[in-house]
Amino acid sequence: MTTLGITDGRVLRPDLSVEEADVLVDREGGEVLDVGPDAGRDADERLDASGGLVVPGLVNAHTHAAMTLLRGYADDKPLESWLREDVWPAEAELTLDDIAAGTRLAALEMIRSGTTGFADMYFHVPRVAEVVETAGLRARLGHGVVTVGKDEAAAWADVEESLDVAETVRETSDRIETAFMPHSLTTVGEEYLREGVARARDLDVPVHIHANETRGEVDPLVEEHGVRPLEYAREVGLLEPEDFLAHGVHVDETEVELLAETGASVVHCPASNMKLASGMAPVQRLLDAGVGVGLGTDGAASNNDLSLLGELRDAAMLGKLAADDASAVAAPDAVRMATAGSADALSLPGGRIAPGEAADCIVVDLDAAHLTPVHDPVSHLAYAAAASDVRHTVCDGRVLMRDREVLTLDADAVRAEAADRARDLVTRAN
Amino acid sequence: MTTLGITDGRVLRPDLSVEEADVLVDREGGEVLDVGPDAGRDADERLDASGGLVVPGLVNAHTHAAMTLLRGYADDKPLESWLREDVWPAEAELTLDDIAAGTRLAALEMIRSGTTGFADMYFHVPRVAEVVETAGLRARLGHGVVTVGKDEAAAWADVEESLDVAETVRETSDRIETAFMPHSLTTVGEEYLREGVARARDLDVPVHIHANETRGEVDPLVEEHGVRPLEYAREVGLLEPEDFLAHGVHVDETEVELLAETGASVVHCPASNMKLASGMAPVQRLLDAGVGVGLGTDGAASNNDLSLLGELRDAAMLGKLAADDASAVAAPDAVRMATAGSADALSLPGGRIAPGEAADCIVVDLDAAHLTPVHDPVSHLAYAAAASDVRHTVCDGRVLMRDREVLTLDADAVRAEAADRARDLVTRAN
Repeated sequence: MTTLGITDGRVLRPDLSVEEADVLVDREGGEVLDVGPDAGRDADERLDASGGLVVPGLVNAHTHAAMTLLRGYADDKPLESWLREDVWPAEAELTLDDIAAGTRLAALEMIRSGTTGFADMYFHVPRVAEVVETAGLRARLGHGVVTVGKDEAAAWADVEESLDVAETVRETSDRIETAFMPHSLTTVGEEYLREGVARARDLDVPVHIHANETRGEVDPLVEEHGVRPLEYAREVGLLEPEDFLAHGVHVDETEVELLAETGASVVHCPASNMKLASGMAPVQRLLDAGVGVGLGTDGAASNNDLSLLGELRDAAMLGKLAADDASAVAAPDAVRMATAGSADALSLPGGRIAPGEAADCIVVDLDAAHLTPVHDPVSHLAYAAAASDVRHTVCDGRVLMRDREVLTLDADAVRAEAADRARDLVTRAN
Repeated sequence: MTTLGITDGRVLRPDLSVEEADVLVDREGGEVLDVGPDAGRDADERLDASGGLVVPGLVNAHTHAAMTLLRGYADDKPLESWLREDVWPAEAELTLDDIAAGTRLAALEMIRSGTTGFADMYFHVPRVAEVVETAGLRARLGHGVVTVGKDEAAAWADVEESLDVAETVRETSDRIETAFMPHSLTTVGEEYLREGVARARDLDVPVHIHANETRGEVDPLVEEHGVRPLEYAREVGLLEPEDFLAHGVHVDETEVELLAETGASVVHCPASNMKLASGMAPVQRLLDAGVGVGLGTDGAASNNDLSLLGELRDAAMLGKLAADDASAVAAPDAVRMATAGSADALSLPGGRIAPGEAADCIVVDLDAAHLTPVHDPVSHLAYAAAASDVRHTVCDGRVLMRDREVLTLDADAVRAEAADRARDLVTRAN
């Protein structure tokens, strides 16, 4: 066994207290061995955390990583027309190599902004998995199914692809898990949902789906099925404890209780919900009811970055407006959401720094004008720290970024390829 | 005359188009001489803008700079109890040197995040002005008046101090202007408002005031005066074209029209409005009505940073939710708000890069993973660029930051003094 010591900093503990301590990591086992004063003094390799805060690696519980290629391509449009006029036509032109390049750019940005794990819903997932493996990140991956607008054979083929990905891609890396990922309750027909979800249970994988994102999606569902969307979701087999739903903006009291009862989680995506004017999720209400809440950036095209530090600020900010209460979604709640909340929602290791936990952690530099003075480091994580303040990123015991240099990817090459492919993609789509 | 050339980048023009061009600046005159290909080639001094975007210096149209000392001191509380229980007791302990130190920290953070001009409402304004002069920034400064809870003599003394500051401090620097600054329509009594505003007109200074920030402030005003707050404001002499009102969250249609008619500006503070759960300003409605809208961070204690790039993202995001329309407060609108919108609201030079305009400009580096690809630089300014992407900051023809090194302030000393004073302040206040 060789060890990594993250030394001379302060450490955010699972109860969100902060103490001066080192973190000692088993590099091969990918596990935290010890947290305490001088615990890292004799480690084989050391990462300097002085002036910084050691925080669990951030977990992005809902994204479409390859959409970095469409960052800033079409802004300031509502969800429906944005998808139909801009996103889907461009996505129809995506090659496997485009998806790999876009995912690599996302992985680079995630490592630089302190994200160590993520959930991804996209296409050509085996290529996505290769990038995750190379980058050294942790992920739960899936193929997004859409059946609306397809003939029966094509629709079933899409369901089969998602199930096949769920079954096979998880075998490709110790850091990769999978899920069955129907796109949403409106874009996947009922029979496909029922069959796909049932077979996901046989495969023992969770289901990830967009739910209750916009009023325009909720109203027709209520009209058609005579029940709220999440009641319909349960009827078709969803809402097992390991399932996680993206957005959950327009959920009523019945649905909050249903989530609390069933144990399914919600992935809050505040930036996307603002940018697409989808609405404000009742996050404090969900937390009060005991619903598991993770945090996601959604794709870069509706955000437009993948920084979870930015996202947890948005969550704290928007949560207060949604509750009409400045004490709602307090700093510790937002920080928990981006760490343990997301890791738990995805049933992935990580989210807490303690012996026996996965060695997924980052060092956030507090030594900066915009982080001076430090009355409360947790407040700074929630309200003032930015992606560029992340100094080191460690996942599964491996250093992915040291002193802002990403070690697992060639940053210049990744950016150049993504820029070239994005330019070509847009030319083809127009 | 010596010249400064900002070379090899792309330039954001007043119409928000982007062109490959140099910017040539008269250093002593503090003015833009030329914008065009190779315009900076033969300049006496050069700033490299390759891979970057030359943007007007950002203008923070409402802040309380010295409140950086209270950054993260008390979060997650509503405006009233936050002010009474935390902010005011701490502010009562502030010394002149504390205010200078807090303002210096703010100036450092502003220069690093691309802000070249700001409006400040605080106390001990001559000390604030000294810091502004040293830092090389541009500002409109004023003393905040509160008469509620004071005896008549103390109340009049506060009004006199604000008028005296308005009259004298503007003489101390070519880059400093002043305003009469009653704190709000509820914290300054009617007779003081009437008299102070009338005398501000004689001094030919604008009036800056908090207005319509929370429902808790609007409702009693309506109750007491029988008219909307801004109708009352006009009755006491406010709403001249050069006046600028912070917040303007809870304004009704009559008040929007009143603002449009009178030409007074609103300073939108989206982060503060979210963090204190004050509400959502109808920004798109204000823009549609032709009201001048600037952008402010408010104090660091309710934000918790002074980055206008973050703030303009918040403005674009929140503006869509407020309008229930994803096309509202589009990227160019938000960028305009933080540049020309704010400069115009404050009647300060700057906000546009064109010959004859003030040489207040910054270079934003687009050469980063989170800004790749570049489909649209204006989108990146609104949605993806961060404070740390600002490479150079120039104000009044003088380079304040070059390659992220601030030249006018000793960053380490400023941060160390602010941290020490913040610690002592909190000890005294508790």
